[in-house]
Amino acid sequence: MKKSFLKTPPMGWNSYDYYDTTVTEEEILKNAIYMKEHLLAFGWEYVVVDIQWYAIGAGSRRDEYQYIPFSEAAIDDYSRFIPDPTRFPSSVGGKGFGPLADKIHDMGLKFGIHIMRGIPRICAHGHHKVLANALSSTEDLSFYDAADIANPSSICNWNPDMYGVKQTKEGQAYYDSLISLYASWGVDFIKCDDICNTHANPMEPYEGRHEIEMLASAISRCGRDIVLSLSPGPALIEQAWHYETYANMWRITDDFWDNWDLLKDMFKRCELWNAHVKEDCYPDCDMLPLGKIGKGFNQLRTTAFTYEEQKTMMTLWCLFGSPLMLGAYLPELDQKTEKLLTDQSLLRLLSPKHVPHQIMRNNAEAAWYTKHEETGEINVALFNLSDEPRTISISLFGKNFSKELLPHASILLPF
Amino acid sequence: MKKSFLKTPPMGWNSYDYYDTTVTEEEILKNAIYMKEHLLAFGWEYVVVDIQWYAIGAGSRRDEYQYIPFSEAAIDDYSRFIPDPTRFPSSVGGKGFGPLADKIHDMGLKFGIHIMRGIPRICAHGHHKVLANALSSTEDLSFYDAADIANPSSICNWNPDMYGVKQTKEGQAYYDSLISLYASWGVDFIKCDDICNTHANPMEPYEGRHEIEMLASAISRCGRDIVLSLSPGPALIEQAWHYETYANMWRITDDFWDNWDLLKDMFKRCELWNAHVKEDCYPDCDMLPLGKIGKGFNQLRTTAFTYEEQKTMMTLWCLFGSPLMLGAYLPELDQKTEKLLTDQSLLRLLSPKHVPHQIMRNNAEAAWYTKHEETGEINVALFNLSDEPRTISISLFGKNFSKELLPHASILLPF
Amino acid sequence: MKKSFLKTPPMGWNSYDYYDTTVTEEEILKNAIYMKEHLLAFGWEYVVVDIQWYAIGAGSRRDEYQYIPFSEAAIDDYSRFIPDPTRFPSSVGGKGFGPLADKIHDMGLKFGIHIMRGIPRICAHGHHKVLANALSSTEDLSFYDAADIANPSSICNWNPDMYGVKQTKEGQAYYDSLISLYASWGVDFIKCDDICNTHANPMEPYEGRHEIEMLASAISRCGRDIVLSLSPGPALIEQAWHYETYANMWRITDDFWDNWDLLKDMFKRCELWNAHVKEDCYPDCDMLPLGKIGKGFNQLRTTAFTYEEQKTMMTLWCLFGSPLMLGAYLPELDQKTEKLLTDQSLLRLLSPKHVPHQIMRNNAEAAWYTKHEETGEINVALFNLSDEPRTISISLFGKNFSKELLPHASILLPF
Amino acid sequence: MKKSFLKTPPMGWNSYDYYDTTVTEEEILKNAIYMKEHLLAFGWEYVVVDIQWYAIGAGSRRDEYQYIPFSEAAIDDYSRFIPDPTRFPSSVGGKGFGPLADKIHDMGLKFGIHIMRGIPRICAHGHHKVLANALSSTEDLSFYDAADIANPSSICNWNPDMYGVKQTKEGQAYYDSLISLYASWGVDFIKCDDICNTHANPMEPYEGRHEIEMLASAISRCGRDIVLSLSPGPALIEQAWHYETYANMWRITDDFWDNWDLLKDMFKRCELWNAHVKEDCYPDCDMLPLGKIGKGFNQLRTTAFTYEEQKTMMTLWCLFGSPLMLGAYLPELDQKTEKLLTDQSLLRLLSPKHVPHQIMRNNAEAAWYTKHEETGEINVALFNLSDEPRTISISLFGKNFSKELLPHASILLPF
Repeated sequence: MKKSFLKTPPMGWNSYDYYDTTVTEEEILKNAIYMKEHLLAFGWEYVVVDIQWYAIGAGSRRDEYQYIPFSEAAIDDYSRFIPDPTRFPSSVGGKGFGPLADKIHDMGLKFGIHIMRGIPRICAHGHHKVLANALSSTEDLSFYDAADIANPSSICNWNPDMYGVKQTKEGQAYYDSLISLYASWGVDFIKCDDICNTHANPMEPYEGRHEIEMLASAISRCGRDIVLSLSPGPALIEQAWHYETYANMWRITDDFWDNWDLLKDMFKRCELWNAHVKEDCYPDCDMLPLGKIGKGFNQLRTTAFTYEEQKTMMTLWCLFGSPLMLGAYLPELDQKTEKLLTDQSLLRLLSPKHVPHQIMRNNAEAAWYTKHEETGEINVALFNLSDEPRTISISLFGKNFSKELLPHASILLPF
Repeated sequence: MKKSFLKTPPMGWNSYDYYDTTVTEEEILKNAIYMKEHLLAFGWEYVVVDIQWYAIGAGSRRDEYQYIPFSEAAIDDYSRFIPDPTRFPSSVGGKGFGPLADKIHDMGLKFGIHIMRGIPRICAHGHHKVLANALSSTEDLSFYDAADIANPSSICNWNPDMYGVKQTKEGQAYYDSLISLYASWGVDFIKCDDICNTHANPMEPYEGRHEIEMLASAISRCGRDIVLSLSPGPALIEQAWHYETYANMWRITDDFWDNWDLLKDMFKRCELWNAHVKEDCYPDCDMLPLGKIGKGFNQLRTTAFTYEEQKTMMTLWCLFGSPLMLGAYLPELDQKTEKLLTDQSLLRLLSPKHVPHQIMRNNAEAAWYTKHEETGEINVALFNLSDEPRTISISLFGKNFSKELLPHASILLPF
Repeated sequence: MKKSFLKTPPMGWNSYDYYDTTVTEEEILKNAIYMKEHLLAFGWEYVVVDIQWYAIGAGSRRDEYQYIPFSEAAIDDYSRFIPDPTRFPSSVGGKGFGPLADKIHDMGLKFGIHIMRGIPRICAHGHHKVLANALSSTEDLSFYDAADIANPSSICNWNPDMYGVKQTKEGQAYYDSLISLYASWGVDFIKCDDICNTHANPMEPYEGRHEIEMLASAISRCGRDIVLSLSPGPALIEQAWHYETYANMWRITDDFWDNWDLLKDMFKRCELWNAHVKEDCYPDCDMLPLGKIGKGFNQLRTTAFTYEEQKTMMTLWCLFGSPLMLGAYLPELDQKTEKLLTDQSLLRLLSPKHVPHQIMRNNAEAAWYTKHEETGEINVALFNLSDEPRTISISLFGKNFSKELLPHASILLPF
Repeated sequence: MKKSFLKTPPMGWNSYDYYDTTVTEEEILKNAIYMKEHLLAFGWEYVVVDIQWYAIGAGSRRDEYQYIPFSEAAIDDYSRFIPDPTRFPSSVGGKGFGPLADKIHDMGLKFGIHIMRGIPRICAHGHHKVLANALSSTEDLSFYDAADIANPSSICNWNPDMYGVKQTKEGQAYYDSLISLYASWGVDFIKCDDICNTHANPMEPYEGRHEIEMLASAISRCGRDIVLSLSPGPALIEQAWHYETYANMWRITDDFWDNWDLLKDMFKRCELWNAHVKEDCYPDCDMLPLGKIGKGFNQLRTTAFTYEEQKTMMTLWCLFGSPLMLGAYLPELDQKTEKLLTDQSLLRLLSPKHVPHQIMRNNAEAAWYTKHEETGEINVALFNLSDEPRTISISLFGKNFSKELLPHASILLPF
């Protein structure tokens, strides 16, 4: 079982929504500085480098591919991706993300990275070496062959980089070697992709199940508190116990963007995962596509969400207790959004001690309440999910609540 | 929302496992007397008359049918089934189950009945009357036509008696009239069948969803605390919020019998519903097929479970917090079984304050612990699910537990 | 196995597209007279009374129901529907459709009716009688009970009238009694519904399989050539052998209407059933929604198909060899449509001796050829399935064909 | 469309059932010589080298893998597998299968090989060259990059060698280069695997659809008559038109072995594909596992089929018109089997002019007849599918046939 250290859901920033695969060390630091100066005081602390930081030329053929197949990547001698030296110059000389993590830590922030489930395909085909005892205290430098670790039938259907790892001693050694390296860099957060729901095989959407266990095992033995975050969603409700036992957070939705239908749909997903929010266990509603986003996708824009929709999103994420990961380009964050992101009346509900309960939900409206498990404090949230102004009325423990709300709007009320 | 009154899962006896459709008033009383004298002191209190108490000649063509189609049934003037007067003689003269319920109540026990979702098909085809205002305080004796209430496309695929009820004012009136009658009889427990999982339409296994809401609404307005129990299973995990909101207990398995494979399978089901056990909400592992069972099925036998299996079952049901409904013919209950059924070290865990957690489960073993939410008391249970003797070892909060167990055996340990 | 007598696919008229459930004897005759005078010479000969000719008040609550549940119907003493005497006055006195069929026959036409698979629900609930030996030569007037014939779990999910019939001696006797009656009336064509694809149970979409066999058996012994036509579609390709062995035609599509998407989709269906067109076996593309249609549906209109689409439809149906059943209100058939319906260059291809072959099909175009199995005559048809004018070019047996066609248009070319 | 040259289904021998992946040139010739001397006169003529003739060390880790992942293979400079020089010594010096094919042709036989759909994974990862204009008459020696041809998301789920090929100009060039090489070797028959039913993605079991078209296109332009045979099965009945248009034979079953349940199941498959047997189009019941088989699988045995079962198999395959491919080790073929394999009363029915029709089939019996489309000759076959002796009786065109048959036995009767 995993270690217990996460009292509240992680809050931070992730490079994906703005940069796609193209983020650089310089850009990471620019965003981190903004976070330190404007957001850290309110609990925002993780800075996460998302997908393909190892890919040379990532994003250079964006009209054809999001992830260029069979293209060059930075890899160390032991079948482990390392940062693209062009984009992450401080990583050269075998330092990996160490120097960048140090700078992030110096700001009082935490550092996270994205990984794909599995082992690089190129390493299996090339029979590269894998460290056999990376997490053991011995100085033994023996090796396995990546070809014996990779499962040639286990691939991701949307990214061409990896083969899944077999559930063997050699497979565990590979994941140990990976986590050992990340811990040495000072990584605090790992977002592992193609693992929460492996879409490729609809008959077996949880084929990475054993790889979650191997990652959790490696993390528990690596000597560092590292958050394990699983993507993509939707997570499988029938595997809830497994997620809870081995991971800290897991995506309950496919990629979430600034689209009302996706936001409305999240109410259904929160109903589904309602009973599974607790300390160290945070079903994840995905990143907050606020502020400026989409540049790496050639779709640079200010979020398409109206202010009412943004508030509805923040209210739902906070009362439900979802992790909060900003997608915005922070250096250009506007005042109104920043105010919403630092609204303590919402953020204080994030703690799983404020236990969430859905009161009702239909196609036009939803209502939730949270009850603090120690103080008994109750908060009520009403949501207008319809496209018209609407009065939402509910009765809770003998008390009536009723508010007229704008379309897609919400309100948080004390009991 | 339903009323809150069930601090612990219901415990009692149900006529199905022994009598199938054939139970009589006399037999109900014989079993009730035994319960009062031997089991009531330990918390056993519900006496439930299961399926087809209204069917004239029920069980008379058992080689062809469990439920004889198009056969005679006792029905009142308002499209409501009433007890078969031959088998329940005290019901004649419009008294229904009132006199029997009175006797049960006089013993300090509670009285329950089984119903099928819907309205009798024969009433729809015959355009029978339905009371329009049974639960209102008015003296208004107006009527609806059963043909306007029945949905001719909504049937149960294993019982031929009913049509589903439409989600209309008239449909609600029908359910109000039903609950009004049952409340007047003194019914404390309703097991509604063909509603938790409506197998008939695999594309829509929850087509009775609105009927659960209508039943819950009628019960909340009937002036009596009535447990609403939903059958058959397996309940749909994605509807967990709905069950919790409208019902008190719901079957998480199809019919459970004295078969090891079914018992072993229950560990998976308990894992799935682990997060949903709480006050007023009791996922239901189904009846305990102990003692003498099967007479009405022409399969009279003593349970096929070994004693170790019986203990494993009781341990799982209790730590998980499932309702406990005995299937045994009580007057001939043996000493060893009775001792197991009154084992306070197990029964005390039934309270949802002893919060259950699965520690691990694989094909050969399982382990759970419960932690009392107020006292912090921890209990550990180890299970050998394999067919060989086996040592089960786990580590919990830094403490190690290890026991050699017989095949299919279990042990409960203090922390 | 069925008898062989259908050298070419049936051509005729069906009341459904114009009248829905409301057609009367007088209207049938009006349409029949027109057919005799204008179409019979070109091969059109069947006049078919479609669904619910037995229902009293059919169509009277059209805003609520297409088929009013639990409503009155005309039934004889042996659990067989008979014509609604109000709409079919010549049927009174036990004559059924006999007098109407006589008039149709006198015009040189053939007479058909629609039936629902099964036995009336009301007869099972009322324990009505069923003739035990209707097709035998004996004078034996013994009976079965409809309740023993009906399967209470087998219903149609879009019509509330019937229960499916069990595969028993008694079930066969019921279908024998039905066909015996229809043969005595002079019925030449039976369109049996809820049998080709029983949508109600997606796990068992061919649950009426044995009822097809029972109907075919009764027809083969009734002493009259009766076409057995199965609805609704889509027929199940994996059951092709069964349809071919027991029926004369079967719907390869759900209800077809005047909608380009449905017409375009038919090209895919014709590809699928291409290999199954042969003497006595006619996969059925459904009725031709031409001329005036929709009155009974409160959607009276002239077909929404453009002339090019109408021609495309007629070309595909004819080269494929589908049955042709007009939906139009014949007395007001316009000249242009009538000309299309009597175009011998198309109608001559209906014979299965002109064996159809698809040459190619994609989202924008399709091409077929037919080859006469005796003369070797080849005809080529090109179709523009796109929404733009387009030049369709193919090569067949070394010869090239190329034509520019309007959107949705087609052309038939000699080889 | 494909060329027309196959008047009857191919008959021959295939190395798989006996050798698995391990066959050598010497063994191929031994079997070929036997075929020439004993079977050629009866129509047996194809000699087919099955899977992984390119794999170095194939079969050397048979306890772990049937197909060793990431292992060495013989490949030419243009991303095309060539024979393993150890097992096929005549292939060295760039001669490929040419010398072996010459020897086979000199015996009056035809030569076939197995291929996997796609392009070697190793060539894509290594950015190997692919000939751009192999089938054109130009001398142009330009190249494409294998990495631009391979689809990294399209893999076979049971063999690790290949990536699927994209439907592009470059992809067609790759298949052209492949067929060009094979035609230069003198290949007469290509069994392409992982293409008829691509099991890997259950949502898209025909993802190789475009690769069939590319192969057919290359074959039609290569200047040689090459049979295109598609594996594995079961073929998708809804794609029947596509198979017929682009291939000569396609497997209607998953791998067939010497097991009665599989043989009994074939009757259902033959019913399904009954309408699709015709010149150049041969639904394929798979190899005949007769004589000695299984050596390469470490399961060397004489076929587990009884003689009656062998005869039933041969009768079904012949009347249906399936290709016949022997699996036996020919040099040790016994007299009784050889007699069955050369029984002209069965083999003469193979011609598609003897059109097959299933008369009936149920769990215990089946009956078919064939009718010659020119002479009208009729043959009847009766099958006892039950495990008891049984009298099979049918009536066909007014004539009755009845025979008592041993379990699993069959009989062929003249009309």
